[in-house]
Amino acid sequence: MGKVIGMRRNIRLTVSYDGTDYQGFQAQSHTDQTIQTQLEHAIYRLTGTKTSVIGSGRTDAGVHARGQVVNFYTDSSIPIERWALALNSLLPKDIVVTEAKAVSEDFHARKSARKKTYRYTINNRRFPDVLMRRYQYHVPVPLRLEPMEQALQLLVGEHDFTSFCSAKSTQASHVRTIYEARLAAEEDGVLHIYVTGNGFLYNMVRIIAGTIIEVGLGKRTVEDIRRLLELQDRTKSGITAPPHGLVLWEVFYDEE
Amino acid sequence: MGKVIGMRRNIRLTVSYDGTDYQGFQAQSHTDQTIQTQLEHAIYRLTGTKTSVIGSGRTDAGVHARGQVVNFYTDSSIPIERWALALNSLLPKDIVVTEAKAVSEDFHARKSARKKTYRYTINNRRFPDVLMRRYQYHVPVPLRLEPMEQALQLLVGEHDFTSFCSAKSTQASHVRTIYEARLAAEEDGVLHIYVTGNGFLYNMVRIIAGTIIEVGLGKRTVEDIRRLLELQDRTKSGITAPPHGLVLWEVFYDEE
Repeated sequence: MGKVIGMRRNIRLTVSYDGTDYQGFQAQSHTDQTIQTQLEHAIYRLTGTKTSVIGSGRTDAGVHARGQVVNFYTDSSIPIERWALALNSLLPKDIVVTEAKAVSEDFHARKSARKKTYRYTINNRRFPDVLMRRYQYHVPVPLRLEPMEQALQLLVGEHDFTSFCSAKSTQASHVRTIYEARLAAEEDGVLHIYVTGNGFLYNMVRIIAGTIIEVGLGKRTVEDIRRLLELQDRTKSGITAPPHGLVLWEVFYDEE
Repeated sequence: MGKVIGMRRNIRLTVSYDGTDYQGFQAQSHTDQTIQTQLEHAIYRLTGTKTSVIGSGRTDAGVHARGQVVNFYTDSSIPIERWALALNSLLPKDIVVTEAKAVSEDFHARKSARKKTYRYTINNRRFPDVLMRRYQYHVPVPLRLEPMEQALQLLVGEHDFTSFCSAKSTQASHVRTIYEARLAAEEDGVLHIYVTGNGFLYNMVRIIAGTIIEVGLGKRTVEDIRRLLELQDRTKSGITAPPHGLVLWEVFYDEE
């Protein structure tokens, strides 16, 4: 009785997660509480074979995702339309696969990614929204939106983002391109900062959010943002806004 | 050194909470995990005096509130504008006081209430929204909205709601008036059922939601709803929809 050998497939998943209880996306040796490890465990339980999951990029501890993208290779013959439901039945409730597709063998969730959008959400009402408290950074002092929008516009384009990434960054180059940076205000005092770029440095969106909030508070001017881009000095920019306001919103690829 | 005797005041709070981790609003002897007990503890820690909190009504275990209203009497001289922040600093993060007002001595959160609105939320997409999973009942099968809307309209008016309340109800009369019952559909497959009435029986909104969902699934007709009102028989209506989709949205009083 020979084992049926299926065709090796490259499977791409879109994954959403509530990062509150996780130590970030990337697998770590001392804990199973990472998104990558939970996905690998679920795939192992489903297929009986260990496999490595490749993510579009890391997300920090406590950061959420609406549309993280991962891929992995498998010999399993499970039909593609069953993967999402089957994995969801094996995953914890705070990780949900929303799409599974068979993709070409050379698709690589990280290397093939062209753009990413992050969303940072601020609750600018007097009191926290208790049902959204895990996903909104509460800033009770009223923010001035117009300078925040102007400051965001200065980030658009190709810049060295040294002032806006963690001093711990080990990247050789801090030059990245921001395609869009905008503020979306809901009626009830909830603000979303959407930032789309070709790549993001360690803590980059959280430092952008923290610095833009300081502009909204009047602690910094719009002109300060221009100077920060020139200075290339992390010690001169704003706080790193807390992780729970951040969502990896969408990852874009050339062909889908 | 005489103790300063403050004026006895009746204080009305608007309270929001995430009911996920609580055994409902009302205090119980075997647990501190009720909203009432948490509020009473916080008031005691703030004022040094034990007091009873009166709620507009109970909410079940796992049910949330945007605008629960409570009142209590206190001799504390803390200025009214400080109460909300002070209590929030003493309450767990999943209970937030959003307003505090000094009201007339005869204001009673339950007896003075004129109307209440509840909201029941359904996620009718294929997969759960991971960030809203605590607050949405996930129904992956597509629902037909028009019959659901028609069925809701039949509930408006004064009716005996015996078919729509728990068989455990001990109320002498099951006659209640529904002023408004409507379906609000968001673009992305999220449905809210809003029901406003002069009073609600045990499990009433959850049984209404469960029955209306069965209409949307085609398991019941709109006409069935009319018959259920006549039958006055809980065994003939639909499931009790799970608590996590329900929010006590607003409580209305004559004078504010």
